[in-house]
This record gives sequence, C-alpha cells and structure tokens, in this order.
Amino acid sequence: MTQQVYRIAMGVEYDGSPYVGWQSQSKGETVQQNVERAISQIANHEVHVFCAGRTDTGVHAKEQVIHFETHSLRKNYSWVKGCNTNLATSISILWAVEVPENFHARFSAQKRSYRYTILNRDVRPGILNNYVSFVYKPLDEKRMQQAANYLLGTHDFTSYRTVACQAKSPVRSLSKLQVSRDGEYIHLDLEADGFLHHMVRNIAGVLIKIGSGEADIDWSKEVLEHRNRCLGGVTASAKGLYFMKVRYPDEFLLPGSQYNIL
Amino acid sequence: MTQQVYRIAMGVEYDGSPYVGWQSQSKGETVQQNVERAISQIANHEVHVFCAGRTDTGVHAKEQVIHFETHSLRKNYSWVKGCNTNLATSISILWAVEVPENFHARFSAQKRSYRYTILNRDVRPGILNNYVSFVYKPLDEKRMQQAANYLLGTHDFTSYRTVACQAKSPVRSLSKLQVSRDGEYIHLDLEADGFLHHMVRNIAGVLIKIGSGEADIDWSKEVLEHRNRCLGGVTASAKGLYFMKVRYPDEFLLPGSQYNIL
Repeated sequence: MTQQVYRIAMGVEYDGSPYVGWQSQSKGETVQQNVERAISQIANHEVHVFCAGRTDTGVHAKEQVIHFETHSLRKNYSWVKGCNTNLATSISILWAVEVPENFHARFSAQKRSYRYTILNRDVRPGILNNYVSFVYKPLDEKRMQQAANYLLGTHDFTSYRTVACQAKSPVRSLSKLQVSRDGEYIHLDLEADGFLHHMVRNIAGVLIKIGSGEADIDWSKEVLEHRNRCLGGVTASAKGLYFMKVRYPDEFLLPGSQYNIL
Repeated sequence: MTQQVYRIAMGVEYDGSPYVGWQSQSKGETVQQNVERAISQIANHEVHVFCAGRTDTGVHAKEQVIHFETHSLRKNYSWVKGCNTNLATSISILWAVEVPENFHARFSAQKRSYRYTILNRDVRPGILNNYVSFVYKPLDEKRMQQAANYLLGTHDFTSYRTVACQAKSPVRSLSKLQVSRDGEYIHLDLEADGFLHHMVRNIAGVLIKIGSGEADIDWSKEVLEHRNRCLGGVTASAKGLYFMKVRYPDEFLLPGSQYNIL
C-alpha cells in the first residue's frame, strides 16, 4: 500500500537581515534551512521546499511562495500556527493550502513583483536601517520614471544581471517599472515574468545615477543595448529590496494578501 | 574674560529596539548616553542634553528634539555629520541649529505628536517585528475612532497613565486622536500639549479592546471618568510606538521635516 502524498503551498514573509539569503552555498543561516526545519517538525519527517524566487543576503520578502510534499495530513491552520511557533521572529508563514501535484512554486509562477525602497534625504537613517536603501543626493523621480520606461517590455537584460547569473536566457519581459515618491521615500515597483540575478538592484543602481543627474535619462537604454554588464551601473544595496508577490494561474486558487510596506 | 556659550538644538531619529529608553535608572544602553557621547566628541568637552520627551524601552523616534550648551563653535553641518559618524546606525542626527538661550527642548514645546502602528492580521509579523504592535483579532477602525473621540479635549487622564507616572498634573489636552487603516496596518495619530507616562500605550490598549468588540465603544469614556488606572485597559506593546514631532513657537525657527513611516 502506497502512502498518500500531499502537496502544500505556503506564503512566507521574512526579514532578510539576519540571513545569508534564501539558499546559499556559503556559511551562515539561510531562510530555507529555517523554514524546512520548522515544517519538518510539524510534518514529523524531513521536508524539502521549493521557492518561487531565491533571494540574496539581506533581501526581504513580503510573500515568498513555496511548496513541499508531505505524508502528513494537517489542517491549513495547523501548518501555519505550528510552523510559526517553531520559527524565529524574522520569518512568518502567512498561509498554507493544499495544491494539485502539477503546481510548482517556481515553474508555475507567471509573474513576480519586487519593490525597491530608497530613503532619499541628506542624513542616513536612524530607524529602519536594514529596511531601506539610503541615497543622500536628491533624486528626481520624474527623470527616474522616464529612464525606467525604456526598460519596459521584452529585452535582453544582460547588462542588468550579475556576471555570475546562472539563468540560461538573459531575456525577460518587464511589465511594470513604476517610480513613486512618498515624502522622503522613493519606491520602485517592478513586475516581470522573472528576474535575473541582481536585476532589480542593477536597475535601481542605474536609475539612482540618472535621478541624481549624474547620467542622462537615456543612459538606461544605452546600458540595455550594450548587453554588457561591465558597462552597467553599480549594484544598489540589498537593504531596500522586497520580494513582494508571485502570480499563479487562477486554477490553483492561491490566497491573495494585502501589501503595504513602509 | 568669559567664554562664549552656544545653545544648539537638534532633531534626532532613533530605533528604540536596542535601548532601555531615552534615559533610564536601570541597566543597559540609553539613547541619551549615546547621543551625549557623540556630541561630546565633536564639542571636545562633556555635553549634557535635554530632550522634548523621554521615551521608554523599545519606543522609536522620528524626530525627538534636544538641546545642549557648548563652548565650541561648529557649523550646523559639522554637528550633524560629525555626530552621525560617531553614532551607531540606530541613531541619526537629522539637523542642528543654534537657538537663543530662552529655548528649552522640553519647556518650550507646545505640542507633541505620537504615532502608534498596529499590524492587524491573523499571523504575526515576519518583517518589521520591532517596529509594529501585533494584534491578531480583527479590529474595526471605525469603532476605534468613535471611542477615540471621547478622549479629545482637556481631561484628567489618570486612568491612562501608569501608576508610577511622576507628572504633577494628570490633566492633558488631546488635540488629535485619529484612527486610520492602511491595508493590514492601523495607525493611531495623536497630538497633545504633552503626554503622561504610558499614556499613548494605555489609550492604544483601550482602543484595541474596543476595536475587537470585547468592549463597548463608550468604554473609553468610562475608563476616563473613573480616574483610576486600575480600571483601565492593558498597556499595549512599545514596539509600535513612534515619537513623531514636537512643535515650538515660530520665533525659534526650527527646521521642519517630512514624515512618513510604515
């Protein structure tokens, strides 16, 4: 007799500050380790999880999505409460649902969205130091938006990914890149089918240089067309980066959540 | 020949999480110690500071105002940059200006404002854990606003201050108590001539109980009229509390700042 297998999807919020990223070859605590340990305790067997998008050291997530397989039947509520009891305060399971076996947190994802938040004033932050990127030069968000518009659509983003990026194709479809100011904060809101390694932080680096007037508005387009990372801008700090949301086909009936951060 | 004395006012932002409050008799690092140490290094002599409002353990400040006297002539810019170089990342000097000798950070203040931020959803925070108060029971912000309205005006706030509060008079004039929801966050914005010890957190405790339906809307008024702390509600967590701003007479020409947090 074969054991019944359940496939469970979860939404996960985390503070990236204390971790060396979602998954890492290098030393240090990863978010994945912590989540797997907590789920395994509730499942009573070792569990391996897959995520929608791996995040780097210091990057936060408002709603990472993961899935795993288990032989243990638990109520959705019990997965959430049980895991949260076993997790550090820097990680919280938002929801859990059973999904069909054709669901995959990474491969079923249609869109991913990120937010990059910059504190833009003349003095460094005293609070939220790990949760914002700090730029002291005044930034013109209208220039940044104009420069951002060149990146919308389907492009070869070679110039905007790290040289170490392992993705087979450098082509991505950026469906949203919105720049907005809220007092002393500037937010970049991005949505794409997928993001290359360091893509958001490299876009932020280019837009910051344009926003401060150090580069022309169409420099973002020039960088794109070079298809050469060495001609791109600096990689902006990980501190202001939030993995916000993943969209899946409606058939999977995943819970939505409300988002507002900072 | 007498030495020239300069009186300097500063705006200070800080993350209260690592400190035992602004000033404390008990063990642990205080914000005041750290600020005095940094200013003393720039002044080249020991400096004592006075603040607009002392904050408790874990309470944050977006713009605490302080003043001190010094024999050292420095540019405003040098006070700010010099101190920030010597301060931990959890404290930032926002501005510095010379003020006349009749200015006093505490006694010249006309209004003080606080914000109390509640994360209101069924699961605990994974990020911003030290920066929000968490309430899992659904809160009705309209009920909370109705209850809040009873507290507006000049009242004896004995029921809303800690028994240990040392203020001579329990009478305060609350000119603003606004309840607003922004997605899964609820903000309480308060302004008064001054606040008693634990007053904001005790008001928050009462409004949370009313918002969740555990108490009637006019319970906030009943508590007020009892003039007895023992008949009040619980003191809500310090984590969601922000000292936002201090207003002084226009004659002092203090810098304003923009505020938006969370």
